[in-house]
Amino acid sequence: MAGWGWGWARAVRGLLLDVSGVLYDSGADGGAPIAGSAEAVRRIKASGLKLQLCTNETQATRADFVRKLRAMGFDVSVAEVTAPAPAACRLLQERGLRPHLLVHHDLVPEFAEIDKTNPNCVVLGDAAEHFTYANLNEAFRLLIGMEKPVLISLGKGRYYKETDGLKLDVGAYMKALEYACDIEAEVVGKPAKSFFESALAELGVPAEQAVMIGDDIVSDVGGAQQCGMRALQVRTGKYSFSSLSNTETVKEGCSFGEEYSM
Amino acid sequence: MAGWGWGWARAVRGLLLDVSGVLYDSGADGGAPIAGSAEAVRRIKASGLKLQLCTNETQATRADFVRKLRAMGFDVSVAEVTAPAPAACRLLQERGLRPHLLVHHDLVPEFAEIDKTNPNCVVLGDAAEHFTYANLNEAFRLLIGMEKPVLISLGKGRYYKETDGLKLDVGAYMKALEYACDIEAEVVGKPAKSFFESALAELGVPAEQAVMIGDDIVSDVGGAQQCGMRALQVRTGKYSFSSLSNTETVKEGCSFGEEYSM
Repeated sequence: MAGWGWGWARAVRGLLLDVSGVLYDSGADGGAPIAGSAEAVRRIKASGLKLQLCTNETQATRADFVRKLRAMGFDVSVAEVTAPAPAACRLLQERGLRPHLLVHHDLVPEFAEIDKTNPNCVVLGDAAEHFTYANLNEAFRLLIGMEKPVLISLGKGRYYKETDGLKLDVGAYMKALEYACDIEAEVVGKPAKSFFESALAELGVPAEQAVMIGDDIVSDVGGAQQCGMRALQVRTGKYSFSSLSNTETVKEGCSFGEEYSM
Repeated sequence: MAGWGWGWARAVRGLLLDVSGVLYDSGADGGAPIAGSAEAVRRIKASGLKLQLCTNETQATRADFVRKLRAMGFDVSVAEVTAPAPAACRLLQERGLRPHLLVHHDLVPEFAEIDKTNPNCVVLGDAAEHFTYANLNEAFRLLIGMEKPVLISLGKGRYYKETDGLKLDVGAYMKALEYACDIEAEVVGKPAKSFFESALAELGVPAEQAVMIGDDIVSDVGGAQQCGMRALQVRTGKYSFSSLSNTETVKEGCSFGEEYSM
């Protein structure tokens, strides 16, 4: 496992792990684990390092997500998962916002406790096939009709890799609504600083003693570095699809000029 | 008809008219003419002014579009319509581009003469209900897989007004693909300068003797002014939905600080 000999690594006490593209590739078939990743999680835990999954997964509740990961052989619990939906619920309650949800049907239960009557904001998640023209237009009409439109996006990813290829992520639809309504969305989830801070709090390790591992140069590597963490980009997931310019950014991303291969 | 007494108006020899939101409001029901608009077209023609419809309509061929307008009582012909699809076909042929079409099914016949095998670009129109996740993802995968992705968008409108309310326009989906692929689309149609220049050539009147009339402050008013034309924004169509900031822009748009009411 290249890189663990580096001096700074001795100070590392905890890891934040992205999931899709790092531990497994998602897919309509439920997805498939990436070779060696379940063993890697076991070894990380056996080494005494603290571990927290830091994901922008918004196609399932954390409980269902963990159930799926455990079925693939990953030894993880709900408490070890930091995800956007619970963070969004905290934000909605703090600000007395009542959301119209444009999210995957399987994520809706995460918002069970939230008042959704007479919406005064729109919450956007990775709705995938639920991103129909009618659904996006409904969200648009609600926003354009608000005196001060509030759009909360669960992540801003461009795309992710599934077992059958690349898939458009929530960020593309966020941009569509931002442009149509001439507004700027508030992003909950990676790369938002507050989201990484929550993940570090749940990890129980300060930024300078934690490392973020992910396949997205912006959401994972860039976001973590803005919180003062080191970050590594794996060569799995969408990495192999990165454009040249992204590949160059990777080198910046990993300040030690190397990527991490599982 | 306020405004025609202005001194400059005496020099006007031709009008470019936007259609949706100016002559009629489109809709699943075929749409409905705006009160007085058919009569206005008759009076413009009777006055000896030249007339050309300058539209970003991409949900039907020009022939079907004109058939619909004539059925609503508008005395117009195909030759009097400047639309994006024919302009896009010229561009595709000039550059030897083979498009993957993400457009409304009813527009496809406009591309009958174009080689669409082994696509090396994506042409995006107002596909409306055909903007499914699967269709947008297919266009995304083609673009991200190209060495130099070429995205040609038939307009960049944010939204338009139909009989049952506002609808997301092609511009929102253009932004989604631009963001996902980290590229910039080439816009054919309003507000592209070359598109207004084609419309003026078909009108047969120089820019300084022509006036553009539309309901979109960017695509109609802004685009025309960049070609040295005067432009008027009607108070029909999406105008009534304009945000305060847009309303302020309108005043700039119509340099004489007045809007035109049909």
